[in-house]
Amino acid sequence: MLLLTEADIRKLFSMEEALSVVETAFKDYALGNSKMPSKVYLNLPEFSGDFRAMPAYSFQHQIAGVKWVNSHSKNPQKGLPSVMALLILNDPATAVPLAILEGSFLTNMRTGAAGAVAAKYLAKKDASITAFVGSGQQAYYQALALLKIFKLTELRIFDTHAESKKTFSQKIKDSFNISIHDYRSLPSCLEGAHIVVTTTPSHTPLVLENWILPGTHINAIGADAPGKQELDANLVKKSRIVVDDLDQASHSGEINMPLKEHLISSSDIQGTLGDLILGKYSGRQVSSDITLFDSTGLAIQDIAAGAYIYKKAKKMGIGETISFWETPHIANIP
Amino acid sequence: MLLLTEADIRKLFSMEEALSVVETAFKDYALGNSKMPSKVYLNLPEFSGDFRAMPAYSFQHQIAGVKWVNSHSKNPQKGLPSVMALLILNDPATAVPLAILEGSFLTNMRTGAAGAVAAKYLAKKDASITAFVGSGQQAYYQALALLKIFKLTELRIFDTHAESKKTFSQKIKDSFNISIHDYRSLPSCLEGAHIVVTTTPSHTPLVLENWILPGTHINAIGADAPGKQELDANLVKKSRIVVDDLDQASHSGEINMPLKEHLISSSDIQGTLGDLILGKYSGRQVSSDITLFDSTGLAIQDIAAGAYIYKKAKKMGIGETISFWETPHIANIP
Repeated sequence: MLLLTEADIRKLFSMEEALSVVETAFKDYALGNSKMPSKVYLNLPEFSGDFRAMPAYSFQHQIAGVKWVNSHSKNPQKGLPSVMALLILNDPATAVPLAILEGSFLTNMRTGAAGAVAAKYLAKKDASITAFVGSGQQAYYQALALLKIFKLTELRIFDTHAESKKTFSQKIKDSFNISIHDYRSLPSCLEGAHIVVTTTPSHTPLVLENWILPGTHINAIGADAPGKQELDANLVKKSRIVVDDLDQASHSGEINMPLKEHLISSSDIQGTLGDLILGKYSGRQVSSDITLFDSTGLAIQDIAAGAYIYKKAKKMGIGETISFWETPHIANIP
Repeated sequence: MLLLTEADIRKLFSMEEALSVVETAFKDYALGNSKMPSKVYLNLPEFSGDFRAMPAYSFQHQIAGVKWVNSHSKNPQKGLPSVMALLILNDPATAVPLAILEGSFLTNMRTGAAGAVAAKYLAKKDASITAFVGSGQQAYYQALALLKIFKLTELRIFDTHAESKKTFSQKIKDSFNISIHDYRSLPSCLEGAHIVVTTTPSHTPLVLENWILPGTHINAIGADAPGKQELDANLVKKSRIVVDDLDQASHSGEINMPLKEHLISSSDIQGTLGDLILGKYSGRQVSSDITLFDSTGLAIQDIAAGAYIYKKAKKMGIGETISFWETPHIANIP
């Protein structure tokens, strides 16, 4: 089996590729071909952290696997990333393990790509001004992906962490010719933005109803656990809501709190991103609609991305080969 | 992080060690220190198989992790093992990945050890005759473990697969001086056995009520998925039932069918193996009791075994080191 490190995967997986793989993965899942049971949480509040096992089967790629990923909020204080992930891929027909991949870079890429795919279907085609609420690592990948889809001219940032803003701005400036504006006032940052991307770990609404103008598209990325929310429930209520997965978003996405507090009901949700891509319903109906993509991150995105990377690595001869078994018939399987 | 192959682990983990690690793991879990969410199944009936993600946190070892394991019943026809497993271990405090271990040998060992630990607490001390219903790979590990605990003089086998019986007998004969008897009649095989071990993948009861004499202890190992059962429900009903985990056994253990058919109720279950080890209740009360251990296999056994093996490997300098990350502070962590 193949071991693929972060360095290997950075060589193998561009944002263009991520956009294509993720869009297909959502479509494939919506067609009922791929499979994804609910992720399981190992909660360790004594360490301010949790682990998540996220299994899925990608029909298109004919690969099954699991992502094992954590979220430890106090890690940055120790000089460690809060999220680290590994991916195991198997042949679904025989279960023979095919590869172990570093999973953090891939997670960042597929999450960024999902946001941009959603915006492609929901935002106005001529969207040019994007506001980022939160400027951490995921904000960068959201920007990277949006820049592939839209002709963005202005990128706005609101964040209380000066260091994050600096890093984010520098990374964008290094690769793109776009004007970047730093805001101290969140309402001013949002006013006139065509696409708003929230990537904070907030547990209380930051973005209030009246700060978002008609016609805006919002990518709500931050909320990925029960209790988290970044948007005013009234704003959620009046938006056309698209989720990555209904169960998972209801449990841990942006809509989890408004649902729990009965401020919205499941009938307020338009549908899934997959069904939107399939054209089963139309996301934006009039120019003044506020559209909202609630992203929680699906195992099916990870396994599809991992499968794509694994197959490309095999073709290009990248990665270290290892066998965990002596038994010749297993050891010899690629 | 460390990569430990099957060959590495065979050098590092004896049955004596497995017995000690597993008994402590059950105790630790019963004390409420360790944590184990329900395992999650990725069912792929189109391939006659499934995958399971089994996460746990071992308090005693201060290690968290997940086992990713499959069960593909048609693999042997393809010359492949039906079960293959990998284990990822992490520091629970920071989630830094510590090791990836081959998981099949370790699973066989911890399952064998759990059966023998249960028999130590439930069977008569002077048990000497053991009957094996099913003689596949797990039967061998059950025998290996029982032989460490009991002075066995006679080992009986019932199996419809001649090849399995031959392999099993040969492996036992190679290492132990014990008389082995092959039975064509299951009732004759069972008559007078002090310990009965069932390790078949049966979905219908094989062992009937009247074939088991008073005083017998049964290790019911085979049933590990909904619909599976090896024992007559009346036999289960009249036994003193000990489970490895109440939820998991009710869902997929030997008791899953009798419970579902309302032939037994949860009040018929004495308790868990962990509580039995802690002395919270007594398993066998009179000499004529039939005792029954329903084993489904717990993630907590895997993580404890993996943690023990990992620490010993580090001490002995066994295993290959790899880093999935370039980032120096992660790459440098052992």
